[in-house]
Amino acid sequence: MIRNIILIGAGNLASQLGYTLSKKGFNIRQVYSYTLANAELLADKVNAYATDNLNEIQKDADLYIISVKDGALLQVINQLPIVKGIVVHTAGSVNIDALLKFENNGILYPFQTFSKDRDVEFDSIPILIESDKPEIEDKLTKFAKCFSKTVSSCNSNQRKNIHLAAVFACNFSNHMYAIAEELLSKNNISFDVIKPLIIETALKTESLSPAKAQTGPAIRGDKAIMDSHLEMLSDDHELHALYKNLSNRIIKMGNQPNE
Amino acid sequence: MIRNIILIGAGNLASQLGYTLSKKGFNIRQVYSYTLANAELLADKVNAYATDNLNEIQKDADLYIISVKDGALLQVINQLPIVKGIVVHTAGSVNIDALLKFENNGILYPFQTFSKDRDVEFDSIPILIESDKPEIEDKLTKFAKCFSKTVSSCNSNQRKNIHLAAVFACNFSNHMYAIAEELLSKNNISFDVIKPLIIETALKTESLSPAKAQTGPAIRGDKAIMDSHLEMLSDDHELHALYKNLSNRIIKMGNQPNE
Repeated sequence: MIRNIILIGAGNLASQLGYTLSKKGFNIRQVYSYTLANAELLADKVNAYATDNLNEIQKDADLYIISVKDGALLQVINQLPIVKGIVVHTAGSVNIDALLKFENNGILYPFQTFSKDRDVEFDSIPILIESDKPEIEDKLTKFAKCFSKTVSSCNSNQRKNIHLAAVFACNFSNHMYAIAEELLSKNNISFDVIKPLIIETALKTESLSPAKAQTGPAIRGDKAIMDSHLEMLSDDHELHALYKNLSNRIIKMGNQPNE
Repeated sequence: MIRNIILIGAGNLASQLGYTLSKKGFNIRQVYSYTLANAELLADKVNAYATDNLNEIQKDADLYIISVKDGALLQVINQLPIVKGIVVHTAGSVNIDALLKFENNGILYPFQTFSKDRDVEFDSIPILIESDKPEIEDKLTKFAKCFSKTVSSCNSNQRKNIHLAAVFACNFSNHMYAIAEELLSKNNISFDVIKPLIIETALKTESLSPAKAQTGPAIRGDKAIMDSHLEMLSDDHELHALYKNLSNRIIKMGNQPNE
């Protein structure tokens, strides 16, 4: 049973995780941060001790959650003393091998985008678990189910593909919003006007497969509208090419035989 | 004052608009549809008369809302008898000139994506108003404010640009979701895992400009991750090129001086 937890990191994810675990009744013993003030800020809120020295980390906790910036992760792992409890990191893109120095290791990857000033409900965040040892995977799964409704196991290869899918679904979608923002701003139109549409398009994925929810001139085969849009973009060769490319992809996808 | 309304069309948008107007106390007199059964279905719910004959349309209503498929719009306009009330259509991509035969004409464009089986709240849907006559624009604006919190005027050129922006923000974003769906499915991962991320990415636009909310390997300049993603896509030349193109666009956008 996981009961006593030490948080290595006091950033956005570590903080939100800390609040949630503390509320759920877990005992957060220590919070480490490279910057003591940050450790203290979080430690205060979760009733834990703060430290900026990895050598002061207690060796008998059940779980050590390393949640620091990707760039600092390997160094923190390197400096963290050997412990018997389970050591996990929360990074999407760092292989589990990075934790080999710890006998009991794993990954606990909350698959969500975290921003300052936006609270998230862990309840609805998928947690992806990985461990080479079935008993550790089992323990981590039971633990994660205490604060998330969606806990699943995935191997490193799946996690890599999930991350790649997220670049399209999240990062590239956001870039599409940014292009829209620019087009509107050039015509003195407030971005506000398009927000409900953006949100409804995303909410549709809850009940409809995106392949089937596709709307717009390309899937309708409305060549007149596509041509008029391409003409509007004729001053921006790159955007013109992108519009054409994505429209062609949608047309092609629409022509694929449905199951 | 707009009080008596006739609905020309009984599809998805006409129906949802009809329910809303009826609830708000407007008097829906008639519902026309090419298919009488469809007209009856909607007329029943909004306490109106149904017809499938445009010559039976009463000539003394305050407002005629034509909300039919783009492909049928010009024919319906052609067949609709001359009336004194205001005649509007609800299409995003059809010019206001199409309504020139009516003395009092305009556009009332609810800027949202409507799907079967998904109820929408008109309250939060931006309504875009257009008319060549200021007094008609004023009447339509007052009318639309009865059921939407966001009513704005825009000319035909702005409406064209809003439509183009929507192709990026809505249609192309959805295509990004579809690519993610395909990548996940190839690796036996349920699309469910990525839904919370998609929705959070869209919800972020409520409080953050997309240009500033951009996350992911490209904006971080994380070449190692981008290279590993490109390698994973090496079997699909088109998707490989798209990943590279969008990443380069994001990198370039990130390098633009901020205000």
